[in-house]
Amino acid sequence: MRFVRHGEIGQERPGLIGPEGELRDLSGVIDDLGGEVLGALPQVAAAELPRVEGTPRLGVPIAGIGKLVAIGLNYSDHAAETGMPVPKEPILFMKATSCIVGPDDPVVLPRGHSKVDWEIELGIVIGRAASYVTEEDALNHIAGFTIVNDVSERAFQLERGGQWTKGKSCDTFGPIGPWLVTPDEIADPQDLAMSLKVNGEVMQSGTTRTMVFDCAKIVSYVSQLMSLQPGDVIATGTPPGVGMGKTPQRWLNPGDVMELEIAGLGRQRQEVLAPR
Amino acid sequence: MRFVRHGEIGQERPGLIGPEGELRDLSGVIDDLGGEVLGALPQVAAAELPRVEGTPRLGVPIAGIGKLVAIGLNYSDHAAETGMPVPKEPILFMKATSCIVGPDDPVVLPRGHSKVDWEIELGIVIGRAASYVTEEDALNHIAGFTIVNDVSERAFQLERGGQWTKGKSCDTFGPIGPWLVTPDEIADPQDLAMSLKVNGEVMQSGTTRTMVFDCAKIVSYVSQLMSLQPGDVIATGTPPGVGMGKTPQRWLNPGDVMELEIAGLGRQRQEVLAPR
Repeated sequence: MRFVRHGEIGQERPGLIGPEGELRDLSGVIDDLGGEVLGALPQVAAAELPRVEGTPRLGVPIAGIGKLVAIGLNYSDHAAETGMPVPKEPILFMKATSCIVGPDDPVVLPRGHSKVDWEIELGIVIGRAASYVTEEDALNHIAGFTIVNDVSERAFQLERGGQWTKGKSCDTFGPIGPWLVTPDEIADPQDLAMSLKVNGEVMQSGTTRTMVFDCAKIVSYVSQLMSLQPGDVIATGTPPGVGMGKTPQRWLNPGDVMELEIAGLGRQRQEVLAPR
Repeated sequence: MRFVRHGEIGQERPGLIGPEGELRDLSGVIDDLGGEVLGALPQVAAAELPRVEGTPRLGVPIAGIGKLVAIGLNYSDHAAETGMPVPKEPILFMKATSCIVGPDDPVVLPRGHSKVDWEIELGIVIGRAASYVTEEDALNHIAGFTIVNDVSERAFQLERGGQWTKGKSCDTFGPIGPWLVTPDEIADPQDLAMSLKVNGEVMQSGTTRTMVFDCAKIVSYVSQLMSLQPGDVIATGTPPGVGMGKTPQRWLNPGDVMELEIAGLGRQRQEVLAPR
């Protein structure tokens, strides 16, 4: 199943994408796609649900994300391009949940920006609480997968003292969606092609095959350090091709357009706006 | 005013502490102490509110904390004891909100722990949304102050690769409370005595006078990097006396008891429990 939340910001309603790509409304079945609902997503035939006409905005496909955990340098080829060693165990950081926006909402540059970069990532959505889970059991705690753009201000992240979160948490730096795709739709989460374009030019092109730590390992690992709750999202790292790794380096400017795609998970498209 | 939330975990009700230290119930006035309510806290005479009999548990005095931002090495004397330089600008990290517990709830050691440490901190509670606010305006966005124990596993934080959040986010590592104290009760937030004892022995003894960056600077600074929302909490750093800075180093063990106090903000008391 491909679940979505459709409607204006703050007024999203649950829905799903039917077999012909049509949008169907789920508000008669569930209140929202959040919390405990994510551990027992409804099994319902699309044909039994009302169609939604037009092309409404799609929002974040999960309501009430409690935390947004991210894994750093989790692709061996991306670690190489940043000049950092491949980590021995997963590198963790947090993005403030206030940075989360819908998959096609604009990304607004922060005041004082100079090095805003893109990072396409496979997002894991937790469905059932997970604390000290084994790798074998880890995927049983997943509601599904989605796309995360881990937008990053590299100067804030790396040149202003201390911890990465400083360049990872600006408002609009966390587009998530368009779909929450259940695991039964994904033959192998470690074999998904992914790509990111800026103004039509392919910047990132990779596959989840080159992850250093796979999804099961990541969920298990994070659950040793903190409990994971339904609706938490883990961004699992980015493949090569970020702006920081280019020669010369490339940064986002107002008017740029990012397009992201992961096989089976749909597409995102964000316009970059000048600081507010 | 000194606001509290009283009752069992997940069933807390709003209240306040009257002039004689008595607990009064606020559920007839507000639903809870969270969100927009924090920007317009009720002005009500304690004598008009029903007394709460007995000594119920006090919970976190703020409902629905969206993010828990923490400032690192913000006391010059603490930076010295950790062997790290005084930062040129505030060091930011995030604690997962799933770590938050009431002021007197137990702190549970995580599996595999070896270096669990204490950190008493002045907590700032945001009352009104803050984005790009000036230092002059910053304190107008505060609902009040509270105590935060920024419990930390130093091996997870510093020896396992990458970012501090790994040792800062374990469940129960974020006791907050007992009171949300409004700014009118605090003559000068930069002149508050603070102390932390373990098993009755004074470990930390300091004052907010030795903060490197004061509360107004911190709120303004963080608001340049991410929007702050009502109910967000900023832990503003810890004075000297953490276990990591002792010779020999001191770590928490099951059965230890931490007692924290900040002038005007009340006391916390946590028993340390073995891993679950």
